[in-house]
Amino acid sequence: MAQRLPARPGDPVEAIETPALVVDLAAFESNLDAMATAVAASGLRLRPHAKSHKCAAIARAQVARGAVGICCQKTDEALAFVDEGIGDVLVTNEVVAPAKLARLAQAARRARIGLLVDSEHGARAASAAASRAGVTLALYVEVDVGAHRCGVAPDAAGALAAGVAALPAVRYAGLHCYHGAAQHLRAPAERAAAIASASEAVRSATASVASAGLDTAIVTGAGTGTWTLERDAGVWNELQPGSYVFMDADYGRNVRAGGEIAFAQSLYVIASVMSAPTPSRAVCDAGLKALAFDSGLPQVHGRGGVVYAKASDEHGVLEVAPGAAPVTLGERLWLVPGHCDPTVNLYDWIVAVRDGRIEAVWPVDARGALG
Amino acid sequence: MAQRLPARPGDPVEAIETPALVVDLAAFESNLDAMATAVAASGLRLRPHAKSHKCAAIARAQVARGAVGICCQKTDEALAFVDEGIGDVLVTNEVVAPAKLARLAQAARRARIGLLVDSEHGARAASAAASRAGVTLALYVEVDVGAHRCGVAPDAAGALAAGVAALPAVRYAGLHCYHGAAQHLRAPAERAAAIASASEAVRSATASVASAGLDTAIVTGAGTGTWTLERDAGVWNELQPGSYVFMDADYGRNVRAGGEIAFAQSLYVIASVMSAPTPSRAVCDAGLKALAFDSGLPQVHGRGGVVYAKASDEHGVLEVAPGAAPVTLGERLWLVPGHCDPTVNLYDWIVAVRDGRIEAVWPVDARGALG
Repeated sequence: MAQRLPARPGDPVEAIETPALVVDLAAFESNLDAMATAVAASGLRLRPHAKSHKCAAIARAQVARGAVGICCQKTDEALAFVDEGIGDVLVTNEVVAPAKLARLAQAARRARIGLLVDSEHGARAASAAASRAGVTLALYVEVDVGAHRCGVAPDAAGALAAGVAALPAVRYAGLHCYHGAAQHLRAPAERAAAIASASEAVRSATASVASAGLDTAIVTGAGTGTWTLERDAGVWNELQPGSYVFMDADYGRNVRAGGEIAFAQSLYVIASVMSAPTPSRAVCDAGLKALAFDSGLPQVHGRGGVVYAKASDEHGVLEVAPGAAPVTLGERLWLVPGHCDPTVNLYDWIVAVRDGRIEAVWPVDARGALG
Repeated sequence: MAQRLPARPGDPVEAIETPALVVDLAAFESNLDAMATAVAASGLRLRPHAKSHKCAAIARAQVARGAVGICCQKTDEALAFVDEGIGDVLVTNEVVAPAKLARLAQAARRARIGLLVDSEHGARAASAAASRAGVTLALYVEVDVGAHRCGVAPDAAGALAAGVAALPAVRYAGLHCYHGAAQHLRAPAERAAAIASASEAVRSATASVASAGLDTAIVTGAGTGTWTLERDAGVWNELQPGSYVFMDADYGRNVRAGGEIAFAQSLYVIASVMSAPTPSRAVCDAGLKALAFDSGLPQVHGRGGVVYAKASDEHGVLEVAPGAAPVTLGERLWLVPGHCDPTVNLYDWIVAVRDGRIEAVWPVDARGALG
């Protein structure tokens, strides 16, 4: 069931079999450097989200640049990184299934493992699993700061934190305050308003924790769309951006505020044209199984007048504008995915290229790690 | 990178780790039987599309019920099935990359391999690969019968068929006449009109082939949404439905015509509730990486008042109507995917259940076979 290796180090990019997931190393490294430098300058901790890349080689590159560890979204995703030697993983999600908690507790023998709770039930289940394994799990109370997904109300954070602090084999590690819905608000003012409101929620939550007699400890959150706002808000001390390593067409639609870093698009799906039935229409080999479509269609990079117009399972229909250079059979197109995270999850390999050559082929270690 | 085995044969369904892809065997087998019986009664050939399931165990069940072989959509998908012993595979897609054609030609030593052409270029490339391998590839001329994706115009079919017939190591095997865009037209009258128009295109194409001095041979096409129309049109002699084995929420929105078989929903993603922060909102563990969203949101099966309202990477937000039974932490939900094909491609395993027990766990042999 493993995907064929699409290329080998040393090959020219023309040798990559399509469809393939490709990272432009120059853009990728400039993104890593820019984020690491900016967060270091702020004095905050950087814990990048690895759900975007699912790739240990990239996590190691982030840790080498100063990240305190990584975030994951699922138990099996976290285990894939621990297996690859990442020593500090926060699962930014509630885990209540006993079998999954048992696996996380086992992993805590080899790495620092954190996870979120938003219920007494979840805290007790984590405590039971950690007790059984003879380890300590770090529990973060998730606070609903505006996304209306998981999380307790801000003024309930203290009670749950105190509940965690009273349980064996777990420790209260801080607050998880992530506003996912704010990341793709297009206008800077909308994002600023959302994070201003989230900041108020964080203040309420930290007051609630203080009134329960606990230190706030870590306040972690933020994503690629808003991280400068959390950085400057004065209430977060750890930032979790993930998509900045790659970027995507949807993030590309955000209007950047003054002072925001212009992360470069580094992720592409290379596709090949397999049919060109009319001058105005061609069809490439990357469709619904090669790209995620939840955030819109991919964009064709650097090919004026050619638009990816429609997808079916294994076809991408391209519209060719009058006057555009003709699209030819076998021609390769570099597509910018609509949404990087679920696109990466469709691939077993990331082909890392520099100056027209393949420098490395990285396994997507946590591909498909849903459990 | 392989997914954890979500369950073992003999386990109760409650033991399946979530998210998991599950097939209800009773519904699944009734779908297989109903299609096999109906197509056999018509005297036409059945060549089910395996892009829906990517699973050799299912392909074998289809062949055991009389299918002449299977369709695939990609080279590596076809090879996965040949490796599993399927002896007759038609790649219902153009293949022009020399490396892929070389692999298909190698496979033709072990199985009957067909593929589509809609250009002289494609025909010559296939001929060259087959010559090099010392095999014969079956080439089908794809005709655009209304989908406006790949394919030659109907009156150009004869010239391309004659071109194929003149090349070494390939043979003209017939016409591929599939109207993908018609499958999800909601009203029976719309689908009937689309296939009536496609039938006219097929007649033009067969006339074109006849005037080139060739037998029409096979005319293959149709899908789950329209197969009774192609069956009854008198111009197709081979049918390619795929989704009928599983069905999905999008096919469920088609209004059925009188006489159409009511295929049962057999495919589910089982998810678990991991957060229930308010009485009206809960969150499950199946999001954008556990389900395909190109054809809409999944439906919650058999749980009145609970609606899957929104997805993020690994979260599904559920709205709970006033008066519905409360959603509880750890509760399992059976979700009907919006679109079966790209959802199956997210899993390495299909858990086959009957009467509340796991009967088998089938590998998704061609998962991720994009090449």
